[in-house]
Amino acid sequence: MRYEFFYWPTIQGRGEFVRLALEEAQAPYVDVARRSGGEARMFRMIADGKVTNPPFAPPFLKSGKLVIAQVANILLYLGDRHGLAPRDAAGRIWAHQLQLTVTDFVLEAHNTHHPISNALYYRDQKPEAKKYAASFLKYRAPKYLGYFERALAQNPAGDRYLIGRRLTYPDLSMFQLVEGMRYAFPRGMAKLEKKLPRLVALHDRVAERPNIGVYLESKRRIPFNEDGIFRRYPELDAKR
Amino acid sequence: MRYEFFYWPTIQGRGEFVRLALEEAQAPYVDVARRSGGEARMFRMIADGKVTNPPFAPPFLKSGKLVIAQVANILLYLGDRHGLAPRDAAGRIWAHQLQLTVTDFVLEAHNTHHPISNALYYRDQKPEAKKYAASFLKYRAPKYLGYFERALAQNPAGDRYLIGRRLTYPDLSMFQLVEGMRYAFPRGMAKLEKKLPRLVALHDRVAERPNIGVYLESKRRIPFNEDGIFRRYPELDAKR
Repeated sequence: MRYEFFYWPTIQGRGEFVRLALEEAQAPYVDVARRSGGEARMFRMIADGKVTNPPFAPPFLKSGKLVIAQVANILLYLGDRHGLAPRDAAGRIWAHQLQLTVTDFVLEAHNTHHPISNALYYRDQKPEAKKYAASFLKYRAPKYLGYFERALAQNPAGDRYLIGRRLTYPDLSMFQLVEGMRYAFPRGMAKLEKKLPRLVALHDRVAERPNIGVYLESKRRIPFNEDGIFRRYPELDAKR
Repeated sequence: MRYEFFYWPTIQGRGEFVRLALEEAQAPYVDVARRSGGEARMFRMIADGKVTNPPFAPPFLKSGKLVIAQVANILLYLGDRHGLAPRDAAGRIWAHQLQLTVTDFVLEAHNTHHPISNALYYRDQKPEAKKYAASFLKYRAPKYLGYFERALAQNPAGDRYLIGRRLTYPDLSMFQLVEGMRYAFPRGMAKLEKKLPRLVALHDRVAERPNIGVYLESKRRIPFNEDGIFRRYPELDAKR
């Protein structure tokens, strides 16, 4: 069975956290909206007045008859099916808790360029974005990323992975957070990384995994751009 | 065994979604931070350099040796243990998906008074809050609440509950969202409710449940106030 994955076809965005898990697991999937007619089908599925469980927004994953939305929910599902989750209940709860904290961080990263409204362009909320981004880089990014660094440091099985001795799905998200922050805030992130040695090492470890390496070099990996979550607007970055 | 629940002692906030589930289930629990010395203990647990799975922030729940953070994660756990979740896998995924959408909505409701930074007071981000709240009431609240209304309408088992024929934990959260919106935006919510008959009926149905009724009349239910998520700042509400 092939999964059908639905997300905006031109950005990494929130969907990328799911794509990385599908790629690491070598799970067969179609990135539907990137195919001809796929985006229209995605919109129809969201608007469908008959389905029992409509998604609020992309991304969502179709697995047989199941349609699952919300990134952390999709990863909870895929993690169990593809050996990307801890095997014990406590570990599964902890993995999901970390992933939900990723969700929170991603929304705040998004709000650096859209603090007022998604209905407005960035250029229409630029002064507010500057204030938000300054506070984000000063308080929020160090708090979140420092928390993940600490989770690595406090893993009783060692600091190679977040949980236990092997890779689980939140590790893949750590890779993506570091990549995204480096793209959006090269100066700010360079400063932050000085206090995040374990997180940076985990990023490198994920990048070196064979399936992830192949994916990153493929056309399936959409480059970062200024339509996604992590956008490079130099005026929002830390000063030199 | 008694649960230990940890959250800010003077607000409903995010913790209220968990309190409602504990109360409906008549699960024995202590609201730790509301007791003498409890808040200090909460801070120590967050800062503990030795625990394997530190919470990022309150609320969190201690169940035996397990410490679980993130509201939706706590409800996923409690739902299964106390008959507040659907019994089948597809229903459990759908309940969690709805709850994660509640999480998203709650953050946006919070951002109506704190659009720029949690490190600033409301009074220091008032112009931005006015812009954010206007967009929230015009676009976001109708989109989210309309989605929950639609989930009720599209429930194949009828529109009394979100999932199947009996109450599950996201229904409790619907009650809280309606209560919170009515408190924070009495004028804006009155307008919105005209298109939300099923959601309002669900709110009333939850309020009439015996355990919830007792809770709402008790001192355990903290009144809404201007330190929580839903705050009444008349200047942010819709115009007359």
